[in-house]
Amino acid sequence: MAAKKSIGIGLMGLGVIGSGVVKVLTDKPDTLAREAGGSLVLKKVLEVDLAKHGSLGIERGIFTTQFEEFIGHPEVDIVVELIGGEEPAFAYMREALTRGKHVVTANKEVMSKHWGELLSVARDHHLALRCEASVGGGIPLITPFQDDLIANDLSAIYAIVNGTTNYILTRMAKEGLDFSVALKKAQELGYAETNPANDIEGVDAAYKLAILATIAFGTEVKPENVYHEGISRLEARDFRYARELGYAIKLLAIAKLVEDSIEARVHPVFIPEDSLLAKIDGVYNAIRVEGDLVGKVIFYGEGAGPRATSSAVVSDIIKIAQDINSGMISVPKLPFASGRTVKPMADIETRYYMRMSVADQPGVLAQISKILGDHAISISSVIQKETDPSTQIAEIVIMTHPAREQAVQQALKETERLAIVKEISNFVRVEAQE
Amino acid sequence: MAAKKSIGIGLMGLGVIGSGVVKVLTDKPDTLAREAGGSLVLKKVLEVDLAKHGSLGIERGIFTTQFEEFIGHPEVDIVVELIGGEEPAFAYMREALTRGKHVVTANKEVMSKHWGELLSVARDHHLALRCEASVGGGIPLITPFQDDLIANDLSAIYAIVNGTTNYILTRMAKEGLDFSVALKKAQELGYAETNPANDIEGVDAAYKLAILATIAFGTEVKPENVYHEGISRLEARDFRYARELGYAIKLLAIAKLVEDSIEARVHPVFIPEDSLLAKIDGVYNAIRVEGDLVGKVIFYGEGAGPRATSSAVVSDIIKIAQDINSGMISVPKLPFASGRTVKPMADIETRYYMRMSVADQPGVLAQISKILGDHAISISSVIQKETDPSTQIAEIVIMTHPAREQAVQQALKETERLAIVKEISNFVRVEAQE
Repeated sequence: MAAKKSIGIGLMGLGVIGSGVVKVLTDKPDTLAREAGGSLVLKKVLEVDLAKHGSLGIERGIFTTQFEEFIGHPEVDIVVELIGGEEPAFAYMREALTRGKHVVTANKEVMSKHWGELLSVARDHHLALRCEASVGGGIPLITPFQDDLIANDLSAIYAIVNGTTNYILTRMAKEGLDFSVALKKAQELGYAETNPANDIEGVDAAYKLAILATIAFGTEVKPENVYHEGISRLEARDFRYARELGYAIKLLAIAKLVEDSIEARVHPVFIPEDSLLAKIDGVYNAIRVEGDLVGKVIFYGEGAGPRATSSAVVSDIIKIAQDINSGMISVPKLPFASGRTVKPMADIETRYYMRMSVADQPGVLAQISKILGDHAISISSVIQKETDPSTQIAEIVIMTHPAREQAVQQALKETERLAIVKEISNFVRVEAQE
Repeated sequence: MAAKKSIGIGLMGLGVIGSGVVKVLTDKPDTLAREAGGSLVLKKVLEVDLAKHGSLGIERGIFTTQFEEFIGHPEVDIVVELIGGEEPAFAYMREALTRGKHVVTANKEVMSKHWGELLSVARDHHLALRCEASVGGGIPLITPFQDDLIANDLSAIYAIVNGTTNYILTRMAKEGLDFSVALKKAQELGYAETNPANDIEGVDAAYKLAILATIAFGTEVKPENVYHEGISRLEARDFRYARELGYAIKLLAIAKLVEDSIEARVHPVFIPEDSLLAKIDGVYNAIRVEGDLVGKVIFYGEGAGPRATSSAVVSDIIKIAQDINSGMISVPKLPFASGRTVKPMADIETRYYMRMSVADQPGVLAQISKILGDHAISISSVIQKETDPSTQIAEIVIMTHPAREQAVQQALKETERLAIVKEISNFVRVEAQE
């Protein structure tokens, strides 16, 4: 074996994930050193809140609040970015690469927004940039997509990549809870943040999908190209009707190639209840990818949390340490050659579930189906649900055949204007991907 | 980009998988060349049955029946071994490495039996040796285990790695079929071979488990150290009782660390019906691995078939081609440093399901539970099932608390000798791993 070199680690951000990574580095140094081909030594920590160093046993001297002092440390080989958020994380990562440091990050926002630029900088400086932890916590995804499935033309991703919403949806489905109650329970258990908007509105999932789609389709898919819609409009009765119809409701991140253009969208979806994704409960993540050779493959595991995330962060660190020790740096690939574009949401085509309150009188369905028909939307089934005897308002559920999003949106607007329609209560897209 | 080099491929074995790989190489040469950094050119094919070249459009001239002619071809950079079976595949792979050829293989038997030796030869000659296709078809497993989860101490594998038996068990469970009927249907559909012994007796799964356990635990686990037991003793009523008790029956390949020694075994298992592995139906594979950081991760997909398998084979070829073009060969790791040993089957501890036919008379249970108690086996539940009125023979089902395998085997022998016991109809181990 070659002479072992100790690898200097610089850590930016000592929050939940950062502390988790420090704990791994200090808990099992011998195991990591054996795999890395040399010990991993924490040389410098950048953290605005100096009080955080206490409980982790980090010596005071390696702490700094100043980026310049941090990045100037000559013995830092690998910078680990765990600040989160776009800035200053992006600027710091960029600067770290420019100053010759390899970078490991768990930052989905930065990687989804600045993938191309960061990878270019890394390539220009012949440095490694790894971000396995940015999607799916510790579940191996980036490397399998980029390397292990490389012989495939990947065609579709269906993914549960947000544990918070999957936890909420699971409780709504199993216990008949309303959204607000389920959210509150998730918050009490620490599965949802006090301000849960990024999770429940699908923003977090859109970041992750942008990263996966970028790798899978060789096209830089940015978050602003990913349509996202959250779960807050779902009601207990939508789950009841879904079950009656043989479906589960999941917040799916979907990216697929349709005639060489890309669909990329995050929204609640009816999926067949006997599909594996329908059976993914609680905070777990499951990412399904389809390739021309491999067929469908699913990766499943914990998508968040300090330990699962540090599994990916520390594995990335070890890979780079191995590269440094062998003198063979795996510079990131920039597989952007496809010339594909992301399709506007208005142009997608799928099936739809619609729930509306209408007057319980003859001719109602004729008026609604006329509007749908005028927009080339074909109905696959209609179920009249309950009628409130006091108001004579009935609830009807319509399932459509595949239709264009734009046509459906327009038809729903016109339907809502009908005198006999009290409200369009909800509509959810349907994917029969199994 | 550096100058592109064409990479010469030598293929041994033009059976179902070999033909699948040739088809991929000829169907999408441009995609593969872009990923590999140079075109992949089939230079030589070794196949005893010369008639096979016809339908694949391979020119007659690159065919040979002679290994010496094959291996002597100067433009073959990578030898792809798809002959299958132990010999001559092992001898050819060894010789190929000795003669300076990188090797890709799908051969679970050779890799499980000769892992250490082949990896040593590859390292000595500074060559790549890749075998992603040897376990789980196209599902990425070897690389994730070795690299993406490298920061983890892996502790347990629970895997459905044989599609044939999972297909048979699925039909037995869903349709109440007997084993022989389900096997026949699997054979008619091409999911089981005419001589299905290797699959249904657990031999195939034992090869695959040996490979996964070797990587996961840093100890060369050989097939002869893996206990294996097949599915042919299972009857329709075992599935019925399992369901009543809240379990599914699967053929699991299990490897785990228990107090630093390794359990490695393949046999039918009762698993909780709400676990994800219980929901894996048909010919699909699912491999669950547990690590100290990542928690549990599951990899799911098609475990066999020419297209799925060629996904892994061709991805391995591309990785080596990339290495050749970059001048940085990833020599295989030999992570054997643990000094762990494989525990004898007699020493494992788990729960058991027992089904037996007994005389329907008072005192029967007292006699049986006395024997179990004498062997320190504690009963968790007993259910008396049907009594045949004509014979006065009753069927009883016993579930035990965790007990030692050796004690259970001994107790069953003694129980079978009791006058009131007509037969021990079956016993199945129980894993409550969720």
